[in-house]
Amino acid sequence: MTDPEAAGDTFRRMWDELLPVGRHAGTGGYRRHAWTAADAECRAWFREQALGRGLAYEVDRNGNQWAWAGDPAAGGAIVTGSHLDSVPDGGAFDGPLGVISAFAALDVLTDRGTDLPRPLGIVNFGDEEGARFGVACVGSRLMTGVLDPARARSLTDDGGVSLATAMERAGRDPSALGRDDERLAGIAAFVELHVDQGRNLGEAPVGVASAIWPHGRWRFDFRGRADHAGTTRMEDRDDPMPAFAAAVLDARERARRAGALATFGKVAVEPNGTNAIASRVTAWLDSRAADPDVLDRMVREIAGASGAEVTQESYTPVVEFDGTLRDRLAELLGGVPVLPTGAGHDAGILASAVPTAMLFVRNPTGVSHSPAEHADESDCLEGVAALTHVLDDLLHTPQPLG
Amino acid sequence: MTDPEAAGDTFRRMWDELLPVGRHAGTGGYRRHAWTAADAECRAWFREQALGRGLAYEVDRNGNQWAWAGDPAAGGAIVTGSHLDSVPDGGAFDGPLGVISAFAALDVLTDRGTDLPRPLGIVNFGDEEGARFGVACVGSRLMTGVLDPARARSLTDDGGVSLATAMERAGRDPSALGRDDERLAGIAAFVELHVDQGRNLGEAPVGVASAIWPHGRWRFDFRGRADHAGTTRMEDRDDPMPAFAAAVLDARERARRAGALATFGKVAVEPNGTNAIASRVTAWLDSRAADPDVLDRMVREIAGASGAEVTQESYTPVVEFDGTLRDRLAELLGGVPVLPTGAGHDAGILASAVPTAMLFVRNPTGVSHSPAEHADESDCLEGVAALTHVLDDLLHTPQPLG
Repeated sequence: MTDPEAAGDTFRRMWDELLPVGRHAGTGGYRRHAWTAADAECRAWFREQALGRGLAYEVDRNGNQWAWAGDPAAGGAIVTGSHLDSVPDGGAFDGPLGVISAFAALDVLTDRGTDLPRPLGIVNFGDEEGARFGVACVGSRLMTGVLDPARARSLTDDGGVSLATAMERAGRDPSALGRDDERLAGIAAFVELHVDQGRNLGEAPVGVASAIWPHGRWRFDFRGRADHAGTTRMEDRDDPMPAFAAAVLDARERARRAGALATFGKVAVEPNGTNAIASRVTAWLDSRAADPDVLDRMVREIAGASGAEVTQESYTPVVEFDGTLRDRLAELLGGVPVLPTGAGHDAGILASAVPTAMLFVRNPTGVSHSPAEHADESDCLEGVAALTHVLDDLLHTPQPLG
Repeated sequence: MTDPEAAGDTFRRMWDELLPVGRHAGTGGYRRHAWTAADAECRAWFREQALGRGLAYEVDRNGNQWAWAGDPAAGGAIVTGSHLDSVPDGGAFDGPLGVISAFAALDVLTDRGTDLPRPLGIVNFGDEEGARFGVACVGSRLMTGVLDPARARSLTDDGGVSLATAMERAGRDPSALGRDDERLAGIAAFVELHVDQGRNLGEAPVGVASAIWPHGRWRFDFRGRADHAGTTRMEDRDDPMPAFAAAVLDARERARRAGALATFGKVAVEPNGTNAIASRVTAWLDSRAADPDVLDRMVREIAGASGAEVTQESYTPVVEFDGTLRDRLAELLGGVPVLPTGAGHDAGILASAVPTAMLFVRNPTGVSHSPAEHADESDCLEGVAALTHVLDDLLHTPQPLG
């Protein structure tokens, strides 16, 4: 049986090791952006965890890291894991909690002397947040063929560095990027544990995901004419800032009415001088809703009212997780809450290719993508216990799993 | 008498030399920010103009460049000039027109064999736009003691480089900064020619300034809480973006009603991620009005309604140009328009220390601080003729001039 104290020790040790990596002294938030020095430190940590446990370690063609107990070539593998990168000034839990919990669950199984009739894989997907190159879940999208390798290579960061160049500098071969059917064929099920990013679990420390809302990202270009802020009469101006401001308020109002989400969180102003009327304001709308039709209509209305030139930069359709697997997990865990989420995850991408499930760990404040993101240690250890239980069950269940 | 064709030749030659310096290939706008490589090129050009004409060349303790016909130590000097730096993606005329016209006017006087009973100085004031370090008219403010040298040295650009460091890298000694009473005492009058930055001159190619509106710059800090844009319900958010948006629209409305100017042209968002609700929006309000009380009340109302933490970063009181000098110029030029401006200028700073006047050259579109800024060559040459006429008169008039 599980020794909760031992599981706590191994969990805490890993947690303390990762905690300082990529943490900004000023904000207390994490800046572990894909293929940066902080990301490399996280990846070195993952490799150490694998080798320290005597696991087979590999990096796949798309830069995702894998640690294997048992021989993945045998097929029918159970895979768990998440990601280690962060949004700008993100929290400590979003991503790392799933990777650390995976190793901690394996440690419990090992301590118990559990046999492994299937290979067990732990994965760290590269560039989940898309904070640097603007596209989320790059590692899992490439692996499943959802993202074109040529497009991925040509993505650039704010400094003009392409993903291809960034990967090369990190010692990866960007020409190898692409769909990895062989790897996918060897996976019987994928389970991602993740911190909840709202306050959805109530009294329950752990829950199971039912679906991921459809969501997308649209770039709004508001164009005007640069002018001197001190000499151009208000009525002579072609200032794009008020149009942007009106769109921010309009988006909030429409999202509230629709029970959906609409956020302008990123803005770029040109020339961005204190005494210059802007010539252009570019702003990115992140929008999500339970119903794809509601989402589509809302974004069209916001775009139409804005007067901006609007470009869809990404769109992820609704993801329904595998029903058989979902029900099995909920039953195993004693009827925990089963609920949808607005956040994208690698599990949402993997779901198109293999039976996939997600476990959520309670977030008492609901705050995420912020230094203030938090989960209680007791809830995290409940998460490890739940993941251990699920992996143990799946490892000992004959195919098919979904 | 003036040879208009010769004046045109010398004007055009200088214009063509400066035109490519610091021009951005993509936008067509100028990025001649203080103490950058582009600024150094402009300054090298000024030095060449001085030395090429056999003028005495010097740089004062505050980094302003001077070219002298006659001996400035004699006192009672007539000084003209402007600045060569630019706002981000600024136009070709704002600043350089005054410096080039100064040299062109001197060329006309020299061609005519005009005697110089007073020394004639041409000045290029450093860092007029404040585009890099956030404070405008740094060179003239330091010279007149309006800006504290220690504060000036500690100003930093967006990359964290201090003005002191930037000046050192450009070969200047920042420890020498400070009030320059001796230099000011030797100046009998300062006349700055500048492109008009609105459409204020109508049918007149040239005008005379009466006053500069009081103006200021206020930083608005809107604070909120970073959160995940895909999981935090609209009603659970503490998003500072809508508050900023409301302030943009409120400022525009209040400025319109007051016949004043209010502009948010610079914005910084943290963390500025597409899927992160902002934790902070910082925006800068530039505001001006003919009446200081109207300006004060309007800014207080905008600040109060915004809910932001508001910090005054700069404030320049109304400047009334020397009445005697103003009337003399208007009469000399045959009753040209005499009008106030909303834009700050080095002349506005100098006016506190020496009799000062300004000439404006017509701007047919009114566009300024933009690559589209323009003045017709024929109007520019009218400006040179007017400046020549004014300098000739002032050089031959016994003190006092104001």
